[in-house]
Amino acid sequence: MESPPSTNDRLSRPTTSNVLETQEQHFLGASLILTNEEKIVNSHIMKLKRFELEEGFKNDFDLIPARHFFEKLEQLNSSKLFQLIRRIPKGAVLHIHDSSMGSTDLLINATYRPYLWQNGRFEQNTPPTFLFSKTNPTGMGWELVSDIRNEMKADIYDEKLRDLFEIYTKDPINTYRSTNVVFEKFRQIFYTLAPIINYKPVWRQYYYDSLKVYYDDQINYLELRGVLPDVYDLTGKIYTPEEIVQIYLNETERLMKNYPSFLGAKFVYTPARFGGDDVFRGVINTFKSLHEKFPNFVAGFDLVGQEDKRILLLNFVPDLLKLPESIQFFFHAGETNWFGMESDSNMIDAILLGTKRIGHGFALIKHPLLLEEIKQKQICIEINPTSNQMFKLMEDHRNHPAAFLFADDYPVVVSSDDRCFWRAALLSHDFYMAFVGIASAQHDLRLLKQLAINSIRFSAMDKIDQNKALRKWEGMWNSTMSTLASDILSGKLA
Amino acid sequence: MESPPSTNDRLSRPTTSNVLETQEQHFLGASLILTNEEKIVNSHIMKLKRFELEEGFKNDFDLIPARHFFEKLEQLNSSKLFQLIRRIPKGAVLHIHDSSMGSTDLLINATYRPYLWQNGRFEQNTPPTFLFSKTNPTGMGWELVSDIRNEMKADIYDEKLRDLFEIYTKDPINTYRSTNVVFEKFRQIFYTLAPIINYKPVWRQYYYDSLKVYYDDQINYLELRGVLPDVYDLTGKIYTPEEIVQIYLNETERLMKNYPSFLGAKFVYTPARFGGDDVFRGVINTFKSLHEKFPNFVAGFDLVGQEDKRILLLNFVPDLLKLPESIQFFFHAGETNWFGMESDSNMIDAILLGTKRIGHGFALIKHPLLLEEIKQKQICIEINPTSNQMFKLMEDHRNHPAAFLFADDYPVVVSSDDRCFWRAALLSHDFYMAFVGIASAQHDLRLLKQLAINSIRFSAMDKIDQNKALRKWEGMWNSTMSTLASDILSGKLA
Repeated sequence: MESPPSTNDRLSRPTTSNVLETQEQHFLGASLILTNEEKIVNSHIMKLKRFELEEGFKNDFDLIPARHFFEKLEQLNSSKLFQLIRRIPKGAVLHIHDSSMGSTDLLINATYRPYLWQNGRFEQNTPPTFLFSKTNPTGMGWELVSDIRNEMKADIYDEKLRDLFEIYTKDPINTYRSTNVVFEKFRQIFYTLAPIINYKPVWRQYYYDSLKVYYDDQINYLELRGVLPDVYDLTGKIYTPEEIVQIYLNETERLMKNYPSFLGAKFVYTPARFGGDDVFRGVINTFKSLHEKFPNFVAGFDLVGQEDKRILLLNFVPDLLKLPESIQFFFHAGETNWFGMESDSNMIDAILLGTKRIGHGFALIKHPLLLEEIKQKQICIEINPTSNQMFKLMEDHRNHPAAFLFADDYPVVVSSDDRCFWRAALLSHDFYMAFVGIASAQHDLRLLKQLAINSIRFSAMDKIDQNKALRKWEGMWNSTMSTLASDILSGKLA
Repeated sequence: MESPPSTNDRLSRPTTSNVLETQEQHFLGASLILTNEEKIVNSHIMKLKRFELEEGFKNDFDLIPARHFFEKLEQLNSSKLFQLIRRIPKGAVLHIHDSSMGSTDLLINATYRPYLWQNGRFEQNTPPTFLFSKTNPTGMGWELVSDIRNEMKADIYDEKLRDLFEIYTKDPINTYRSTNVVFEKFRQIFYTLAPIINYKPVWRQYYYDSLKVYYDDQINYLELRGVLPDVYDLTGKIYTPEEIVQIYLNETERLMKNYPSFLGAKFVYTPARFGGDDVFRGVINTFKSLHEKFPNFVAGFDLVGQEDKRILLLNFVPDLLKLPESIQFFFHAGETNWFGMESDSNMIDAILLGTKRIGHGFALIKHPLLLEEIKQKQICIEINPTSNQMFKLMEDHRNHPAAFLFADDYPVVVSSDDRCFWRAALLSHDFYMAFVGIASAQHDLRLLKQLAINSIRFSAMDKIDQNKALRKWEGMWNSTMSTLASDILSGKLA
């Protein structure tokens, strides 16, 4: 926007389109040069994007990213643009959690396994609790799930389960009026799910099937945050953290064998932000020994839990500083809209601790100094659009602060967080929100491509593995572009 | 955040509080040094602010700026912090509009004047229309307002009027689901009001009484945007733009005489963004002749109307470039969340045209290059928090992009836009939202003081008048601080 010196500034000015062009040169992905095939795909994608934006511009109540995810899920799933985004190789997913990575269907299927008991019925003051057990568990009121399901009819029973396992509601606007209300439901889901998902046969299967869901959404590598809970079986055995990690490893390798273009996974140990110093030191020791035993798989450390509930990252700093330099941090921070309150400073501590990525960083926009730091140090921001809307950090994706990050080429990846709780959401849904709701109308295929590249470049893989992954992804990308371009030219994708 | 070089970065790092301190040094207002009296007031204000934030932190559904203005108006008006903000001299208000600057009460009072006719009753498909006329206006269905009011009972009638003149509703969340819906109601209000407010005796009184309302809210100078509509009287005379401006001038001087600490007003001619080239050239000629006749009062030019309705500032550029250099621009721009759509480029054109201030600039956060330009050229952003919420640019003030501007000392003023349509809002309400909802929890009295100083520094007054105004305001500020400090020390303000 520099204008040549002149006696009349108003007349000898750069044109509007000069400035628009300069702005676009700073966009995330702007440095990528599209091949001819990509150009064909791009112009098709931009036609679809432009169409949806124009419709929304006329009637803003219709724009998918402007509304709550639950209100627009059907329209979204039938969007041609969304269907096209599904087909595009998206690289890696870097911000997901152990017990919310799969779909509700996987969980409902798991309740068909024998020996599952239920205590309490639906729609009472407290939700029912579950447990796998060879015999009637101790305490009053336990019934076999199979009996209750028979009594209620399977369809009805499974619908009740679905309500229990999901945040979904037809009227999200009035049901969830504040962040705390959503978190309350969220915690209840975790609590209810734990004894189902932590049952070893389920645990194993749920992880494997979840990887497959990601794989089908054109993702070929992932980094999983997990709490390593008390996984158990019918003999009463509680599995050690080492054993759980070994299950992860085995299942990952099984998928890699079955689907050779799947490149694997890594694990970020992410215990909850609570417990006294002793508990936390135990956790740190667990992590150190896991990192020693599985240096390639157990890649890093993070902490999880509603940030605004006041246990600050700062509290854990003395212990975290004692960890060996080889350990990478991937801290959650800035998942808050409480500017200047205690929780808001977690971003500072994450950066001071040398975090490699920041989970969410929603509040970074209020911290210009930290933004500078992040750009200079190339700390990657893992944005999770749908998750942020669910937790009411913003209501309309057009207000998501990542627009600033996209506009100025910050190191960003898009991820899906606790996707299964918001009914069948996929990374593709988050890519859609980022592409249509957050980014500029002018942001094109290069944004999607750069996000995929970033997801590999900012992963915990070492440079050699990154380069391998990038080559593999590139092959998939080019072949997809080729197919899409010929589908477009032949009118199959009109 | 620069850390000294070290072999172990994690250990020899700056502390969290170092970084917090550096951040605060960049805050808007950070360079101000408080007197002892101001410090007393500040610690009281921060106690009140902290209390409201802590309550909200515990139960986020209770935080006033997180909720819709209409849902929290009562709680807001009874907030001690709000009452204190009301008492603070706020300097100037720089972004208000002619027919929405007063309160609904002033409008209802105006309908008690004789010769007002009404066509159509309430709660029909189209709202009733009004007209002042000595005799029954042409056309079917006209009745005297005084007759209808008698028939319906005054209380009930006046309530119906209030509904007609305000966007207010008890259930804003479900009533206004999209920006277009609010704008529809907004346009209907303007349309209904026009023949009442444009009646010369009302026009004159409404302007005078509105100035007084601002004055009572501790504002002693203002810049008014106006469309110069067809003001009429009972003789059928239509007042010329010159005559209307003369009314403004006379009424402004009347208030200055009655309240010597009121420093006056200026006028920014702000016709609607429509009309073909010929209409626009007429408008430009009107403006030029007004500017020649009233060079000190008719200070600048702007255009008004929902930006997303597609008539771009760019369309008017050739004609605007022909205006003499002495004319100052104060363009509305960036009152949109359509990133990258046509309307989004109005900010570029406003800046290229050398605008002195930008009305709203809500979308600036998505334009890092423009942000740089604005800071370097010290173009002032007029933020209007409540207005932005009304038009659904954001729902929760904690997501207002001005947080970024406050955090990094951008040239900003806070204003109240079309305040009367949102039921009795005052500039103090907007200051409250800015202070509690948008700014950091750590932002203190210096923010409020700097906003007041900015409102004078970025006004259309010349430097000499600005300095006079600043001295006058400073006197009021210091005397208020003195009173408040002694009230606090004596326990009167506990």
